[in-house]
Amino acid sequence: MPRRTTRNSADRVRSSCAIARTLDVVGDKWSLLVIRDLLHGKSTYGEILQSPEGIPTNILADRLKRLEEAGIIASEAYQERPVRYAYTLTPKGRDLGEVLGAIVRWGKKHIPGTRTLTRS
Amino acid sequence: MPRRTTRNSADRVRSSCAIARTLDVVGDKWSLLVIRDLLHGKSTYGEILQSPEGIPTNILADRLKRLEEAGIIASEAYQERPVRYAYTLTPKGRDLGEVLGAIVRWGKKHIPGTRTLTRS
Repeated sequence: MPRRTTRNSADRVRSSCAIARTLDVVGDKWSLLVIRDLLHGKSTYGEILQSPEGIPTNILADRLKRLEEAGIIASEAYQERPVRYAYTLTPKGRDLGEVLGAIVRWGKKHIPGTRTLTRS
Repeated sequence: MPRRTTRNSADRVRSSCAIARTLDVVGDKWSLLVIRDLLHGKSTYGEILQSPEGIPTNILADRLKRLEEAGIIASEAYQERPVRYAYTLTPKGRDLGEVLGAIVRWGKKHIPGTRTLTRS
């Protein structure tokens, strides 16, 4: 069965709803967990890869690329041969801390046994 | 290439991080857009289907089922033959309004041309 195509009106309205447009950028679990890690002070591919959720390497590479294209993170080479990048949140990215804060509060209230993870 | 398996430690830690566990439940764009619609007063499958983002019917049916299993929404039949259900947010689901509020504020600040959509 072919994939259902989006209605023609979608692009027009998607571009004006702040919720839908934000979720187009960060509306997936892995993007928000990468942002959580950067807020917690992690900065390298290897450090994020060590997070307990076990993000797959291909997804991590994709999300770092997409978040940088969206202006949410910035990268800077800290080593050459092989080149390695450190990632930091831009001011736009740091503002997502408010969203993650709301998510933490909801989780701690409604999902038994959860807590705020601090940097490990 | 086989899908990378999750490390053994994942389940243990996933169950304690409030962000990761919350995102397991509502960490996708469509779930949060369905919750947005219910917060805006929509209640039926048909009403949600009319939202401008054009949610595919199979995804809407899946998300309603998962959100009800998670205790975020409740359903009640309002018509028989054929049976039709009205969906409402539980108190747990209404508390996600804080998360959506944070998302709206971020979007309006950082994505040009977006706004808070009111019920259409």
